[in-house]
Parts: sequence; structure tokens; C-alpha cells
Amino acid sequence: MKRSNRLVALTNFFLENPREHRQLPYFSEIYGSSKSSLSEDLDIINDVFKTESIGYLERNSGATGGVKYIPEFSLEKSVQFINELCHKLEDPTRILPGGYLYMSDILGDPRQTREIGRVFASAFSQREIDVVVTVATKGIPLAYAVASFLDVPVVIVRRDPKVTEGSSVSINYVSGSSRKIQTMVLPKRSLQEGANVCIIDDFMKAGGTITGMINLLEEFDANVKAIGVLAEADDDEEERVVDEYTSLVKIRNVDSKKKYIDVHSGNFIEI
Amino acid sequence: MKRSNRLVALTNFFLENPREHRQLPYFSEIYGSSKSSLSEDLDIINDVFKTESIGYLERNSGATGGVKYIPEFSLEKSVQFINELCHKLEDPTRILPGGYLYMSDILGDPRQTREIGRVFASAFSQREIDVVVTVATKGIPLAYAVASFLDVPVVIVRRDPKVTEGSSVSINYVSGSSRKIQTMVLPKRSLQEGANVCIIDDFMKAGGTITGMINLLEEFDANVKAIGVLAEADDDEEERVVDEYTSLVKIRNVDSKKKYIDVHSGNFIEI
Repeated sequence: MKRSNRLVALTNFFLENPREHRQLPYFSEIYGSSKSSLSEDLDIINDVFKTESIGYLERNSGATGGVKYIPEFSLEKSVQFINELCHKLEDPTRILPGGYLYMSDILGDPRQTREIGRVFASAFSQREIDVVVTVATKGIPLAYAVASFLDVPVVIVRRDPKVTEGSSVSINYVSGSSRKIQTMVLPKRSLQEGANVCIIDDFMKAGGTITGMINLLEEFDANVKAIGVLAEADDDEEERVVDEYTSLVKIRNVDSKKKYIDVHSGNFIEI
Repeated sequence: MKRSNRLVALTNFFLENPREHRQLPYFSEIYGSSKSSLSEDLDIINDVFKTESIGYLERNSGATGGVKYIPEFSLEKSVQFINELCHKLEDPTRILPGGYLYMSDILGDPRQTREIGRVFASAFSQREIDVVVTVATKGIPLAYAVASFLDVPVVIVRRDPKVTEGSSVSINYVSGSSRKIQTMVLPKRSLQEGANVCIIDDFMKAGGTITGMINLLEEFDANVKAIGVLAEADDDEEERVVDEYTSLVKIRNVDSKKKYIDVHSGNFIEI
């Protein structure tokens, strides 16, 4: 295969298979090219990926030598995306009863959810994560987006115990904002003991839901390595029950009467 | 920018922006290259995309001339994927009470859901679709995958009326398999009147849930242009209430006592 064709095919391979390690002979065989030509191809691809701020090729030499694509937004690109997101969310017609924000247009747009996932995956790129966990329903597309860039599976915690997936573990927890007792359930089969977990959700107020997930995950001896929330309600009156987390945006002073809302970048940028 | 670098950058652009129409001057400006060089680049990329069976570049000339990437698996690649899926699902340890199948490992794998989405998007590629609709929870990752390749948003129908998204439309429907009356709800704001809709779900038994969705969508004067289900229970005893749909796999003769199950390719291949 000619270099120009090979560059297109290789770029497609890396983008479709993030974090998948392949040895050079794998590509040599498919494309019928020498290791030295391939090596030059990888240099070119790596350069462009870095210029486009979408990540880099991680290469190691020696007997087990090979290459994998690590998707990683540059910090500049993440910050730019977050600022655009703040601008979109600052629209007062988004204000819903109870201090919530209408975000279904953003969460319903596969391009947006993919970019949000890419920002989180970049932030958590160096942490060892085996699985992304979220709770039904709105965090699901974000969880899949993050997982796709980290190349790990997704496990969905449900709030209703009506699960047709064999035996399951359930816990009761107190919702931070409504103070109601709620249930969370996870099928035993869905998560291995001792897994390294990344929790993803769309919105955090006091953090009751996330705490519930942490408690449920303790039943599986899971290690929570990262917590990512798209938006957090930055309200001094309420006491945050979760300490370490990464938020992309912070929502303040939601005033449904005056139709006013204040959206800032979250602690992602502060960190 | 040199051709080799440009090919990598352009490939990344097309894969990340399926179905997005761009005129050549857009690329000329970014990459500082002539229209004739770009035209040669597009020929190369189109060739490789076709060889790799991942789609093609649709180009039109003239004043509004430009290019967009149409992601489309070749039929051979879709059939190959479906056959592999059948093989995975035929494992009798997947049998769950009530004739359901444990599919959470497949539905929880972002690579698998992406490929399933690509197969449906290829099948529905020529239909005019404005939005993908699914019902919480398991169909959600499939709906996002389909939507990402069709470049349209996703709308999620919920079964619980506890929605914090303003006024909503709800209907009651009879679940085909359990004969129970259930509720489905969709916020008014989430779907435009008269939209062309593609319904996606993970599993169909008698089709009560899909019928419920169709009825709910009628309230929005939506046109159902396509229905895709990952797996259908192909059980002669039950009467299918939905006529036109595309299934990837058919599940027959689930015998939880004898631990036996029969998985065939769905009507996707028959069509």
C-alpha cells in the first residue's frame, strides 16, 4: 500500500481503537510495508495528532515494542470547550423548577457528549481505570463517551430494583437535595470485585447520588479512582458531601423568578 | 501543510464529523493548499474508506460544491459483525428468567455499541431522519451510536413521570409480554412537531414497548422512518404487534431448564 493510503488507513485505525496496543509487525502484514516506512508514518500521524490537540501515539521499542493512540485533548482545547459550554448554559430559559437546568439539548447531542467525554478522559488519562460507572439515566451518554476514549466498559446503576439480570446488590441512600430515601441497585454479574472505577454523572447538587454510588461500589470492593460531573450546583447553603471530584461547569445563583443564572467553569480548570 | 500531514488531518476531520457538509475553500484556508491538491487528497481518502468498508466521501461540484463523509459499513462487514454477535449471544449462561438474555456485557462495551450503531446507521443511511428516539435504559447507548453516525440528536422516552423538564406528554400502554399497563413520558420541549424519527431499542418481544413509543410519537405528529432493534424474540406463540422493523439478531427456543438457546441473524440480512 502506498504511503498516502496507509496514512489514511492508519489514522482510521488509531481513532477507532484508542488505547489498543499493537506491535508494528501487525501493521506491516496488513499494509505490506517495512517497519522503517511504518515508523515514518507513525511520526507523521503523531505530529498531526499533537497539532490538532487530539492526543498522541505512545510508542515503545524492543521485543514487545508497539504503538497505541492515547486520546487527550490539550488543556487549551479543554478550556476552550468548557468556556463555550458555560456560554450555552448561561441562557436563563434553561432554568427549571428546583434549581435544575434544562440540559437535554446538550446531553442529547452525540457530538457534545463525545466532546464532554473527551475532556474527562483527558483529565483522567493517567489514572488506572477499569470501568466507568454511572446512574440511570442522564449520565449514560457521558459515561459511554468517557469509556470510549479510555477503552473500558460501562456499568449502569439503576434506581429501580426491577432488574432482569440475576442477583443484585442494592443499597438505600438519602438524596442530598430532596432528603428522600432512594434505592440503587447493581447486578452482581456486572462488576468485578476490586475494580478501579471512574464515576460519571451529569449533575451534582449536594452529592447524595454520588455518595450513594460510592457506598454501593464499596459492596464490590471497588476503588473509586475518579469522579466526573458535568455540572455542579455551587450553592453555599448546601453542604457538599463529596470531596474529590472534577466538574466542568459550576452553576450559581439560579433565580427562577428573576430569570437569572450564573455559569462558571468548574474545578477542572482550577485543578 | 504537506500532503501526508493533510491526509491525517482530513481523515480525522471526516471521521469526527460524519455527514457534515464542507466546501473545499474551508479546507484550503485551514491547510493552505490548492483546490486541486485537496481534490487529490479526497480521492485518496475516499479510496481507503471504501477499501476499509467504512463509508465514502460524497462530493458535489459547482458553486455550492463540497464534500461530506457518509459512514456506511459494506453489507459484507455488517453481515460479518452480525454473525459474530450471534455467536457471542448463543452462550446458554446468558439465559435469564422470563426468556430474556443477559446482554449487559455487550451493551456495556462502547466498541460493541458503536459497531451496532454503525450497522443500523448503514441500513438507514438513505432515509431522512431528524432524530433518534429510544426508551430508558438499555437502548440508550445504541441510540447514541446510531445518532452519532447519522449526525442527529437523541431523545429519551422515560417510563417514570418524574421528569424535571417542564411540561410533558405521557401515554399509557400495555406491555406486550407482561400485559401490564405502563406509562411513557416525553417532555414537550424535547421533540419538534413533525420530526422524522428513528426508533432504536435493545430488545423486542411482542413489541408493546415499541408500539407505546409509536403512539407517544403520534402525539408529536412525528413520522417514524425506521425502527431498529438489536435482538428480537422470535417466538411463534406471541403475536408481533409491530410490522416494519429491522432486527440484527433473532432469539429462538430459549429453554432455561435445558440451558438451550438458538440465535440467528435478524431480518436485517433477509431484507
